[in-house]
Amino acid sequence: MTKKITIAIDAMGGENAPKKNIEGLNIFLKKNKSKKDFIVHLYGDKKIIDEEILKLNINNDLIKVVHTDGVVSDEETPLTAIKNSKNTSMWNSIKAQIDGDADISLSAGNTGVLFVISKMILKMMKDVSKPALAGLWPSKKGMSVVLDLGANIECNEKNLIDFSEMGSALYKSIFPSEKPNVALLNIGSEEIKGTEILKKTYSELKNLSGDENFIFNGYIEGNKIMNGESNVIVTDGFTGNIALKTAEGTAKFLTDSLKKSLSENIFSKLSLVFSYFSLKKFKSKLDPRKYNGAIFLGLNGPVVKSHGGTDAIGFYYSIDLCYRIIKGNLMHQIKNNLSHLDVKD
Amino acid sequence: MTKKITIAIDAMGGENAPKKNIEGLNIFLKKNKSKKDFIVHLYGDKKIIDEEILKLNINNDLIKVVHTDGVVSDEETPLTAIKNSKNTSMWNSIKAQIDGDADISLSAGNTGVLFVISKMILKMMKDVSKPALAGLWPSKKGMSVVLDLGANIECNEKNLIDFSEMGSALYKSIFPSEKPNVALLNIGSEEIKGTEILKKTYSELKNLSGDENFIFNGYIEGNKIMNGESNVIVTDGFTGNIALKTAEGTAKFLTDSLKKSLSENIFSKLSLVFSYFSLKKFKSKLDPRKYNGAIFLGLNGPVVKSHGGTDAIGFYYSIDLCYRIIKGNLMHQIKNNLSHLDVKD
Repeated sequence: MTKKITIAIDAMGGENAPKKNIEGLNIFLKKNKSKKDFIVHLYGDKKIIDEEILKLNINNDLIKVVHTDGVVSDEETPLTAIKNSKNTSMWNSIKAQIDGDADISLSAGNTGVLFVISKMILKMMKDVSKPALAGLWPSKKGMSVVLDLGANIECNEKNLIDFSEMGSALYKSIFPSEKPNVALLNIGSEEIKGTEILKKTYSELKNLSGDENFIFNGYIEGNKIMNGESNVIVTDGFTGNIALKTAEGTAKFLTDSLKKSLSENIFSKLSLVFSYFSLKKFKSKLDPRKYNGAIFLGLNGPVVKSHGGTDAIGFYYSIDLCYRIIKGNLMHQIKNNLSHLDVKD
Repeated sequence: MTKKITIAIDAMGGENAPKKNIEGLNIFLKKNKSKKDFIVHLYGDKKIIDEEILKLNINNDLIKVVHTDGVVSDEETPLTAIKNSKNTSMWNSIKAQIDGDADISLSAGNTGVLFVISKMILKMMKDVSKPALAGLWPSKKGMSVVLDLGANIECNEKNLIDFSEMGSALYKSIFPSEKPNVALLNIGSEEIKGTEILKKTYSELKNLSGDENFIFNGYIEGNKIMNGESNVIVTDGFTGNIALKTAEGTAKFLTDSLKKSLSENIFSKLSLVFSYFSLKKFKSKLDPRKYNGAIFLGLNGPVVKSHGGTDAIGFYYSIDLCYRIIKGNLMHQIKNNLSHLDVKD
């Protein structure tokens, strides 16, 4: 019998926990009824969790609840976290990986704390000096991986090359049949553009391009992130975070303006009757819940962070992401990709 | 008699020059029929320009055509520009300011070349060590100024403070009745977030806040750029360029997806009949041509760069911007704002 994929979930993390977390799990279980290759461990207050499970009438063959007393509070800072967060549901859902009880950990709790305790418990991978936060980004052709989204405000060329290898590994774990195209985010596409760090990274990635890990597409500008031609977009955490949030703000501004325009008079309201299904499809395609789940890469085990305010559907997508990247052998892919760097040194 | 506002236009710069430039001017003249406080000088091939003027039947009381032989080519790089661009239409439209023949220069030509020769001809303002490229950005409450959009990939705290003062001056020249709110683009809103340069800039801007130039709003994240609460958003040219282009790319992705959704079947197409005027208003509000025109700040004279590929309406908006910022006394506002820094030193 092959080992089952084991997902450790911090059931108490997030604004709507544990209710939405367990509702999200319920959706995941229903959508994967025929599969028997996984098991989910829920960490948190057993009494409350069991009540929710009962309410939803979940078949608990594929679930195990592990009782923990504490919960990481929203007020906790990364500085106080290590002292105050031991044995919380978040802590134990990560520690499960060290104990051999889980392949991946998922939490919708406090990001800063999750980052600090993940790093403390799982430790950095050999040869990786900075971990990265990778996210999924919608594109014309499907979905891209963008990293770093905010773990490191300053990065050198070594970090950016690690990110390229780890991001490619992540992409391959999600889309096993594709060889990823990697691009470096910059303010122009000519080779001479950008900071010294970017220029050095560019020339090293050019050397690495075409091996079995990825193809290097060169520089990419902000307006091309979503055109789908690059699958892995690499940048430092400061720039990545600005790009991500600017894109979110722009999307919100546009959809708010559109909503306002379409509800301003009787004709436009009437038009909504006819365009209902098309607009629903438009909305669904761009539903941010589909991209819920940022992945910490570079530790000796994968940790997924769900948005704190997401609902059951958003949480479902982040569980699904956990399942897919373990199924796709993420850690093996990362180690394999990074080993190419050793050879080249 | 007060001196007229004199706008020097590079008639030959841009993909659709001189046709669209002169059509844009025609729109400007029609919209400002009742005003007699400006004059426009067109630099370029007199024969071609005169033909276009004749075609449009423009009353040329308010126009003067200044013949120049050369045109800056698209292939020119900033490195070769100084040697090869002398006496082109772009060059002469900027030199006009030195000769006392113009208050402001406008070109839709090669950006890199425009930047280099503007700096060479007009020279940097005393006490400003780096010029900035400022742009207009749509917001929920109207329009904001964002700078730097790409002139400097690395900036120190002195540069960012200069940008805050110059950006505020620009905002006040466009909206004379408002005292601008300045915010610093960062990856979090807490005071301890960000790079050392940002932290130093934050504390200096906090000291400057509340004098007559601007109110300092603190840090702003990418998703808040368009909420209209800050009127001047300050960042280095690398980050600003990434944010601008990511916003453009996101807007294009969304509107393309929407168009596709609304034309996919007979019902959604029918809905367009009813929503026609509302969607037109939506489109018009967000029309990028309304924000056409980036302003080089920090030189001894203002230079406006129009998008190279814009049409007549886009070019009209950049002429209108030139008129408004001179009417609003931009250079005086900048000098006045910067003089506050001397006092504080």
